[in-house]
Amino acid sequence: MQFTAQQIASLLNGSIEGNPDVEVSNLAKIEEASLGDLSFLSNPKYEQFLYETNASIVIVNEDQQLLSAPKSTLTLIRVKNAYTAFSTLLNIYNEVRLDRKGREEPSYIHDTTTIGEDGYIGAFVYIGKGGKIGKNVKIYPQVYIGDNVIIGDNTTLFPGVKIYQDCVLGNNVTVHSGTVIGSDGFGFAPQDDGTYAKVPQIGNVIIEDDIEIGANTVIDRATMGSTILHKGVKLDNLIQIAHNVELGKNTVIAAQTGVSGSSKIGENVILGGQVGIVGHITVADKSQVQAQAGINRSITEANKKWAGSPVLGFQSNMRSQVIYAKLPDLEKRVRELERLLKENLKS
Amino acid sequence: MQFTAQQIASLLNGSIEGNPDVEVSNLAKIEEASLGDLSFLSNPKYEQFLYETNASIVIVNEDQQLLSAPKSTLTLIRVKNAYTAFSTLLNIYNEVRLDRKGREEPSYIHDTTTIGEDGYIGAFVYIGKGGKIGKNVKIYPQVYIGDNVIIGDNTTLFPGVKIYQDCVLGNNVTVHSGTVIGSDGFGFAPQDDGTYAKVPQIGNVIIEDDIEIGANTVIDRATMGSTILHKGVKLDNLIQIAHNVELGKNTVIAAQTGVSGSSKIGENVILGGQVGIVGHITVADKSQVQAQAGINRSITEANKKWAGSPVLGFQSNMRSQVIYAKLPDLEKRVRELERLLKENLKS
Amino acid sequence: MQFTAQQIASLLNGSIEGNPDVEVSNLAKIEEASLGDLSFLSNPKYEQFLYETNASIVIVNEDQQLLSAPKSTLTLIRVKNAYTAFSTLLNIYNEVRLDRKGREEPSYIHDTTTIGEDGYIGAFVYIGKGGKIGKNVKIYPQVYIGDNVIIGDNTTLFPGVKIYQDCVLGNNVTVHSGTVIGSDGFGFAPQDDGTYAKVPQIGNVIIEDDIEIGANTVIDRATMGSTILHKGVKLDNLIQIAHNVELGKNTVIAAQTGVSGSSKIGENVILGGQVGIVGHITVADKSQVQAQAGINRSITEANKKWAGSPVLGFQSNMRSQVIYAKLPDLEKRVRELERLLKENLKS
Repeated sequence: MQFTAQQIASLLNGSIEGNPDVEVSNLAKIEEASLGDLSFLSNPKYEQFLYETNASIVIVNEDQQLLSAPKSTLTLIRVKNAYTAFSTLLNIYNEVRLDRKGREEPSYIHDTTTIGEDGYIGAFVYIGKGGKIGKNVKIYPQVYIGDNVIIGDNTTLFPGVKIYQDCVLGNNVTVHSGTVIGSDGFGFAPQDDGTYAKVPQIGNVIIEDDIEIGANTVIDRATMGSTILHKGVKLDNLIQIAHNVELGKNTVIAAQTGVSGSSKIGENVILGGQVGIVGHITVADKSQVQAQAGINRSITEANKKWAGSPVLGFQSNMRSQVIYAKLPDLEKRVRELERLLKENLKS
Repeated sequence: MQFTAQQIASLLNGSIEGNPDVEVSNLAKIEEASLGDLSFLSNPKYEQFLYETNASIVIVNEDQQLLSAPKSTLTLIRVKNAYTAFSTLLNIYNEVRLDRKGREEPSYIHDTTTIGEDGYIGAFVYIGKGGKIGKNVKIYPQVYIGDNVIIGDNTTLFPGVKIYQDCVLGNNVTVHSGTVIGSDGFGFAPQDDGTYAKVPQIGNVIIEDDIEIGANTVIDRATMGSTILHKGVKLDNLIQIAHNVELGKNTVIAAQTGVSGSSKIGENVILGGQVGIVGHITVADKSQVQAQAGINRSITEANKKWAGSPVLGFQSNMRSQVIYAKLPDLEKRVRELERLLKENLKS
Repeated sequence: MQFTAQQIASLLNGSIEGNPDVEVSNLAKIEEASLGDLSFLSNPKYEQFLYETNASIVIVNEDQQLLSAPKSTLTLIRVKNAYTAFSTLLNIYNEVRLDRKGREEPSYIHDTTTIGEDGYIGAFVYIGKGGKIGKNVKIYPQVYIGDNVIIGDNTTLFPGVKIYQDCVLGNNVTVHSGTVIGSDGFGFAPQDDGTYAKVPQIGNVIIEDDIEIGANTVIDRATMGSTILHKGVKLDNLIQIAHNVELGKNTVIAAQTGVSGSSKIGENVILGGQVGIVGHITVADKSQVQAQAGINRSITEANKKWAGSPVLGFQSNMRSQVIYAKLPDLEKRVRELERLLKENLKS
């Protein structure tokens, strides 16, 4: 895709300083840009980049001052807010780049499932019976959708996503490659002879609107009822969400974190990477949990920071960490006290 | 699927109180059930739910007493043990729901591999040459089975499972979506110039009978010989089992745990989630290891509980944790002792 | 595949003691070998195995002495270095075993992508438009390759690998099943109303030459620019590499480790399993980090060992661990000091 400065300026309602016919085909950071790239400068502190950059076009704030002349190959587009304007461009670029329509063959789609208009179905996609798929849904190659799955509008499933039967996905949901939704929860009842009997997992997973899920993440179906991700949740890669878990609105979880069965995470919670959360607890709204923490009990007070395994308040944990690093020294001080005391008690 | 109270009562050898013709099509928890749902009450403590539930049918114990009348829409089925009866129904329901037969196209199956009767092969399945697949095996869409793979009877591979060449799976094995069996072990020999030379991984993986493996788990093939999961093992999601590992009978491992190369885990061991186990060690039978523990040495005494990283006895670890949380206080006490002693030694 | 002692001896330039016509079809450890297996003995310490083994052929060092006669079924092949000779055989065996050519159908390949000669494309493979694939590239079934992907020579993608658009893979790269390359980085900008706005991820991933990546690992594309794995990197299974990360030459990472966004790991670094690394830091060349460590700050001094979470020097961490395990004892000693001091100050 090639765009002229003129086209971009009209799109952003900006004014051009330089060559309106110069063309760009790529977006890049100002310090890494080459000829043919479009970039932006938002923070006046980095003004120096304006004189050094090899970009063909840079978007700047209306009030950006120039102390010397940029390279002759550089065209500026002045807009109200350079950062917002660039984000707008990024989004448009991404939408164009990821735009796909139509149906590729071979694909296997049961004819009792209805599929809305304007979507994309890639080759080697499998869609079971009795489902309902909304408008403008992009289903990339090698995706599996089981029986009776319901998917809202404008949702994207990247290559190789697997969705088991009976699950429900809302509107504007994005799921990245390799993620599994609706696999069996890990439920086994110990028997007297040391073996385990499978507890059938007959519930489902409900993914509400405006949710993004990373790659190779797993969300298990409920034993009965539903595992629920509420509106606006964002999950990173390689995350484990066990059966009957509930994630509150706008909760964000970083990579490799695991939430055990039946735990309920509140709204606007932030969990760092590699966090572990035991089963059957609650985590209050707006909790912020540091990477590698282990939450082994309910957190009932909202809007606090936590760290460590087992979890402590963020400040407490930091203070303990500091002493932990000097434990040999502390032990030596105690030994010295013992020696001194022994000596003095003797005398 | 719709069933009448009459049909369910005959199946469970139970007696009906209410309308034998009422129909249900879904199973639900008693406190969440709606009209058309079947539920159960096992614990007399929750008797109150019997009067509040919207379920159409509830299975209760023979001796369940009623202090007042349930809703007129509710039919009871009395059985010897309500919990067992409900589990039986769950299993039947699940079997019916997951029943699949026949072969979908396109699939790619090498004709030197023999396939038993009564099974299911989904679209986009790939099966290599020289293998042998048992009776009533369900191979969901997009599964890959390499050359010379042997699979027993009544085994289910959910969508997208990948099994490399030469691996062996027993009877009644279930593997969930995205799991990889038989990928190369992580073996590289450091060279003098700082690069690494690949050590070929020519062994295989053996999965014995009655094993269930969750989603997106990885089990590497042995360098030589076999990585072995013994009968009755249950693995959760996103687990790493390295080359030449051996997991004893009925051992259960929760999500995101990793077992490093050549380690041997005993029988009836329970490993919590996110546990790490170093290579070349053994873990004794019936060991129970808490989530996020790090096992850095062999555990030789059977039937004990462990926690922490590096691992300690469960009780020891808990006692150290308690003091860890108060380390700043302990350091203050030592400082105070130092001050007092200094003062008094002076005087 | 069957080989005679004669064929193997010629290949290895070795001399035969025994039956030159005996055939083997499998490689095994000397202590586990059966009739028909080939094995080796390198360490004279284990000479006893020579008399006990059931192997049909054992490769030994030229100067290996025999104190008694091996079984009559055993043929020896004497070579300069038995270990090196056996490794050579392993590599040849593996190459023959994994050799594949040609194109299976159905596959879906956009005709604007060029594909070099001598390669393999399995069934259900999807290749997008505008790409370039080198010579002797093996693309196993169910692999997805997005638009404009460039792949060098002699690269192998095992079943189900997913590569998003615009990514670049070098020569001699191996990627195991289920691994995802180029999924979106985890970038969301918090909004005033508590929701998050997606930050488009328009960069790519560059995988240089001689790299191996395990199964179900995820490598996210850069926000802008590239996530880069430099030449010779080896990654195990279930690893998370976030957007804009850079891994230096010959760096090796064990399973389930995660590297957060924009961090730069040096050359010849070794990271153990389940390590977590925060974003926007650097780790110096030749650093060695123990399993389950948490690196929360830059490591600037090269060639040191690290452990613990948060990370400490390896020795420091070990000393603190030792005291941690005895914390209850240390607290008791402080209590005793307090008691003694109180008593003596009183008097």
